[in-house]
Amino acid sequence: MENEALEVIYTRRSVRSFTGEAISRESLMKILKAGMAAPSARNIQPWAFVAVTERGPLDSLCERLPYAKMLDKAGAAIIVCGLPGKDAVSVGQYKDAIGGKYWVLDCSAAAENILLACHAMGFGAVWTAAYPNEDRMAVVRDVIGVPEDVMPLAVIPIGVPRDKGKVTDKFKEANIHWDRW
Amino acid sequence: MENEALEVIYTRRSVRSFTGEAISRESLMKILKAGMAAPSARNIQPWAFVAVTERGPLDSLCERLPYAKMLDKAGAAIIVCGLPGKDAVSVGQYKDAIGGKYWVLDCSAAAENILLACHAMGFGAVWTAAYPNEDRMAVVRDVIGVPEDVMPLAVIPIGVPRDKGKVTDKFKEANIHWDRW
Repeated sequence: MENEALEVIYTRRSVRSFTGEAISRESLMKILKAGMAAPSARNIQPWAFVAVTERGPLDSLCERLPYAKMLDKAGAAIIVCGLPGKDAVSVGQYKDAIGGKYWVLDCSAAAENILLACHAMGFGAVWTAAYPNEDRMAVVRDVIGVPEDVMPLAVIPIGVPRDKGKVTDKFKEANIHWDRW
Repeated sequence: MENEALEVIYTRRSVRSFTGEAISRESLMKILKAGMAAPSARNIQPWAFVAVTERGPLDSLCERLPYAKMLDKAGAAIIVCGLPGKDAVSVGQYKDAIGGKYWVLDCSAAAENILLACHAMGFGAVWTAAYPNEDRMAVVRDVIGVPEDVMPLAVIPIGVPRDKGKVTDKFKEANIHWDRW
């Protein structure tokens, strides 16, 4: 188990060029299951996911989001949404907890699981940020009908990669401190 | 590749009970490489990592952090730190970017990669939050010597799991919306 899972983590890359092939609902469910397997503070799971497979909304997002042009050939997209309300409601139970802040961390972990699951299944994907950019969040809300109290964190185009691409090794020993900074 | 990597994602759990065995530096390097393989906004990689293996700092963190008591039997800990300065410095180049905010998302993705790598290698780990809690961040800064402009996001105790534990399936179909909210 060790080598293959580590290899998936090490070789994941941002894929921005797709063939245009559709992604099945069955595959999307496996990918979404990976998202929901992420950890969350106090196991609140302050997230929801919009799986977009229809050309209409994919094309609208493509047109109106500045950094999501690769949606034109994506087979689907997953929008990772945060639920600050769910996060905040729970907070009263914890004397030192901080209201409505952990959802950003939790949803980012879920987004990374989604990217890894795509790669593990042979698909390509890329994290395009909505949060914390208010303009982009407004576009997603408008196109998808996301309510005001739900935070679109990331729009993740998913597709069959058009080429093999190149993995860059980002390991830097200088980023590591041992025992003390 | 598909099944084993997905299985690792699906079966990762928060492990809080360790045998006390040490974790080798070689294993920690593999785990840290997984952290650095995470995506980051504009590939800024606004992160640094403190790998703690000595009992002195592990015991101090154990004593002073309220939710990190499992450090007493952990073989090591990795502290994921954010570098908002690195993030913010780059921001001037991007007209719609938002200064110093993406590091939280990027470091959360790195933290999730670390948790998954631990599980893939047979170790257990758990995300204990420092950021955004100022008190806990101050403890980490004091014990480890982390500078004021570096943000300790998570303290991740790592060890050999004391028992097999139980994986909970967090998949909920109600969390999924298709095409529209």
